[in-house]
Amino acid sequence: MKRIAIDMDEVITHFSASCLALFNKEYNKNYTAEDLQGKLLVELDARFADKVDHYLANESFFLQLQVIKDSQEVIQKLSAHYDIYIVTAAMEFPASLAPKYQWLKQHFSFLNEKNFVFCGDKSIIHADYLIDDTPSNLDTFMGQGILFTAPHNRNVTGYTRLNNWEEVAAYFLS
Amino acid sequence: MKRIAIDMDEVITHFSASCLALFNKEYNKNYTAEDLQGKLLVELDARFADKVDHYLANESFFLQLQVIKDSQEVIQKLSAHYDIYIVTAAMEFPASLAPKYQWLKQHFSFLNEKNFVFCGDKSIIHADYLIDDTPSNLDTFMGQGILFTAPHNRNVTGYTRLNNWEEVAAYFLS
Repeated sequence: MKRIAIDMDEVITHFSASCLALFNKEYNKNYTAEDLQGKLLVELDARFADKVDHYLANESFFLQLQVIKDSQEVIQKLSAHYDIYIVTAAMEFPASLAPKYQWLKQHFSFLNEKNFVFCGDKSIIHADYLIDDTPSNLDTFMGQGILFTAPHNRNVTGYTRLNNWEEVAAYFLS
Repeated sequence: MKRIAIDMDEVITHFSASCLALFNKEYNKNYTAEDLQGKLLVELDARFADKVDHYLANESFFLQLQVIKDSQEVIQKLSAHYDIYIVTAAMEFPASLAPKYQWLKQHFSFLNEKNFVFCGDKSIIHADYLIDDTPSNLDTFMGQGILFTAPHNRNVTGYTRLNNWEEVAAYFLS
């Protein structure tokens, strides 16, 4: 079976949406995903630089992340035809290690935890495909990189891009 | 630079020695590393089957593990010539995630945490070498596997074997 490695934040979890919600509440702002098109959080508002570190230091942040639409159903279908690994950069935020594991067991209970990988640099991953929202992760990956659309990467070009989980299903299963 | 992936338990941490010490204390036994030659803990005493799970569920177990002789010095020397990744199977014991990270930051502070990988199945690792005490991890590894001698694997044949960190230094640096 070919092997697909799948990133977590912005690919199966609504990471930036949670950051926006917390920030809006604290600063009485109304930033939306639309405001974030083509930008990193810190480019939208410089105060995110400190705030994101603060959010991520709190285990509960990761536990409450919403699941991205269709990701559960599509990944379950993909697992019949591919070996699925969830591969997340967790080492810069060690407080994320335990809650990321719990979140995966809760929302992707059909996956075996032996197929979870918590790493830093994703060039260490041995797989055929990597679905990730961060272009630099695809640049150093050994296999076929696939850019999953997130607000911040909207204007990035030069990668195979899939916009949502319906498109992932069509790419891998049709 | 070529890349060396290095396992934790029994390669840089005295894992089985800690299990023996806890077991000896609880059951008033005197098992030594010598008794463990060619055996898994559970083959030495069937009561280890439940006990090991119990030890590993406790975060403090991982924090107090002793460092294997010469591993720090040799890995520091290796890092001048190779990219070093610490690759440990942590997913079956999620209580180990946070303390394994802390242990590495404490005892191998010269390594960047981006080079830590917590996984299940090590076939996901993209590296040139894997130094590991568990033969099955070497069987599915893409590169050159190196069996690091531990009591339980003493009688295993068919692998490139290095007995200690002095031999690792000689293999990679001479």
